[in-house]
Amino acid sequence: MSIVVMKFGGTSVANAERIRAAARRAIDCQKQGNRVVMVVSAMGDTTDNLLDLARQVSKDPPKRELDQLAATGEQVTIALMAMALEDLGAKAISFTGGQIGVITDDIHTKARIKSIDKRRILEQLAAGRIVVVAGFQGVTADGAVTTLGRGGSNVSLVAIAAALNADLCENYTDVDGIYTADPRIVPNARKIDRISYDEMLELASLGASVLQNRAVEFAKKYNVPIHVRSSLNNSKGTMIVAETEPMERIVVSGAALKDKLARVTLRNVPDRPGVAARIFHTIAAGNIVVDDIIQTTGQDKAATISFTIDLADLDDAKKVVERICRDLGCQAVFEDHLAKVSAVGVGMRVHTGVAERMFSALAKAGINIQNITTSEIKISCLIDRDQGKDALRAVHDAFDLGKKPGKKRRK
Amino acid sequence: MSIVVMKFGGTSVANAERIRAAARRAIDCQKQGNRVVMVVSAMGDTTDNLLDLARQVSKDPPKRELDQLAATGEQVTIALMAMALEDLGAKAISFTGGQIGVITDDIHTKARIKSIDKRRILEQLAAGRIVVVAGFQGVTADGAVTTLGRGGSNVSLVAIAAALNADLCENYTDVDGIYTADPRIVPNARKIDRISYDEMLELASLGASVLQNRAVEFAKKYNVPIHVRSSLNNSKGTMIVAETEPMERIVVSGAALKDKLARVTLRNVPDRPGVAARIFHTIAAGNIVVDDIIQTTGQDKAATISFTIDLADLDDAKKVVERICRDLGCQAVFEDHLAKVSAVGVGMRVHTGVAERMFSALAKAGINIQNITTSEIKISCLIDRDQGKDALRAVHDAFDLGKKPGKKRRK
Repeated sequence: MSIVVMKFGGTSVANAERIRAAARRAIDCQKQGNRVVMVVSAMGDTTDNLLDLARQVSKDPPKRELDQLAATGEQVTIALMAMALEDLGAKAISFTGGQIGVITDDIHTKARIKSIDKRRILEQLAAGRIVVVAGFQGVTADGAVTTLGRGGSNVSLVAIAAALNADLCENYTDVDGIYTADPRIVPNARKIDRISYDEMLELASLGASVLQNRAVEFAKKYNVPIHVRSSLNNSKGTMIVAETEPMERIVVSGAALKDKLARVTLRNVPDRPGVAARIFHTIAAGNIVVDDIIQTTGQDKAATISFTIDLADLDDAKKVVERICRDLGCQAVFEDHLAKVSAVGVGMRVHTGVAERMFSALAKAGINIQNITTSEIKISCLIDRDQGKDALRAVHDAFDLGKKPGKKRRK
Repeated sequence: MSIVVMKFGGTSVANAERIRAAARRAIDCQKQGNRVVMVVSAMGDTTDNLLDLARQVSKDPPKRELDQLAATGEQVTIALMAMALEDLGAKAISFTGGQIGVITDDIHTKARIKSIDKRRILEQLAAGRIVVVAGFQGVTADGAVTTLGRGGSNVSLVAIAAALNADLCENYTDVDGIYTADPRIVPNARKIDRISYDEMLELASLGASVLQNRAVEFAKKYNVPIHVRSSLNNSKGTMIVAETEPMERIVVSGAALKDKLARVTLRNVPDRPGVAARIFHTIAAGNIVVDDIIQTTGQDKAATISFTIDLADLDDAKKVVERICRDLGCQAVFEDHLAKVSAVGVGMRVHTGVAERMFSALAKAGINIQNITTSEIKISCLIDRDQGKDALRAVHDAFDLGKKPGKKRRK
């Protein structure tokens, strides 16, 4: 019998009716001969409401207590889901993260899973029960409740599937799957049938928010296929799987837009060993996540260093960078009006001409490229934010992403 | 340093403001040189709202899952309370029942505490922290969450105090203390300063709902004094303590009315050994709690057996009793319009004339006594429900309960 682990996000368990609908899916899956584990999130706005309460009692709530608080959201859902399953005639049992030994480190509010004790889940599956597990949470070795941070239930999904050596992960969500671009911006964006872990990782880090990188990295490491699909219909969604040869025939799989970027440029940076390291160490210590970095060496032993960051981090970055400039005697320029458009595809490894096609499409659309970064499977262009949506549509069209692959296509 | 365990019920933690007020009390208590443990209930209507959700997903929710669900209510409060304490400058840490090893049996929704591991609480107290513990809950040896049933947070309060060998339990609630009678019915009812465990047990079982019997029994067993007081003011409440000699000077400490009683009378019951046992075994198996029992033997080897039950159980009782009657060939009469008025006081052990005083007061008020039951420290009269409030006032006046004891008083 196959083991299927299915995850239902907050909107998919937002009320009693949706909880019962999710329960019916799990029962159907069990009736098809599978052993079924459900991983569930907190209902709808529950987590936000809990954090709101926290803010009412404390200006700066301790993270340990935030976790103790937030973890109740998923605990409510597991109990209700087990009740719904039993009411619909199945045998079911619910477990918190702690109850099935999801052991994490002690970095509260963004803990990382260290181990999962699969014994209890397997016992209950063997007894014919559907096992309902709280996503997003675990406990420290000492028994304190932890949560896994943004996208944590997807991490739970994949980690539990990996621990059980599951045959399939199903990620039920409020979208139909992974699209060639954000359909709200690109009307002819197309649902992708299969995509590789690496492509998904690039798309996620580039702004496609369906599945966070930590979950995909986990899935890649343990080779767990993930099926991203809608909880509102029975359509097939997108399979995220290990790379296969046919995937390479598709040059570009998807395009993404990362909005709300800022760029920091330091001029007249002393061009000697250790200076860049010192700069980025100071920035990292300020909890600012740096995206791309470009360094160009000019004359007189002075360099220019540019890097992009989330617009939300700009104020924090200014404080840190101005201190660095005083120390090093360099000057800083801050730009707050940028975006990044990218094309992603494992086919780039074996096909050429991708960059040229992308650049000429942007040029034809009148979009100025301010910077270019590349990896083995993606090309990114930094542009003005006002042109972001046009740029995404231009790139999407340039690679015919709206058309079903496999048919004859322009290169 | 003394250990004080303080409990705050649902209304005393109903919102952020009350949570912060409770936190301030605990901090004050710590500043007076005590080591402080707080036991808290779920906020206001939280538990009801959760049970409402349960009913939306299931007609008959499994009890294990009801416990998994309900226990989140207290978990929310402990986290918020710890946050509030830290925000107000104290050091604090929260624990669920499971996290401090409150081990119970596995009778879900009305579990009984088997043991508490005091080590973790003592460690945290030694580190100068205020320890916030979720009331009403524990875990089975196997790690399943359990709840302790009605009045469970008071059981938690006393059990934790007993485990820690605490110097004082403070039970913060929405009333000022224990009264000589229900002040909503008896306008001159007076707050009692000190009352014995035994008197409190009689009053609680007779309808005074501030503190349930299970908690008082626990307190008596481990000799933990309980201070019942209001969370809304700083008045002294009522101390529930072991019996002392001065208490015996007060003949009657309080009067109580138990409303909504029903009586079942079986006539022509075969008067042979084992019949009564068989009857009450069958009734107990139907989960019906029997209050008082009277058996009178008539002629022809036939007896009459009467017993009182909660009115709410009458329909269930009818089914069971009618089956018994068919088997034994006896007849049943059901009365649904009764109440019980009682006087309670440890002084009855050494004073006489209490019954006469009570009966004549009821007679003077025109109230017919349908049955009398007594224990060492109480006298109860079964009466018509319509006359319940008048009866309570008559008994309260007969023993001058509205006047401060210690002063010269009528006997």
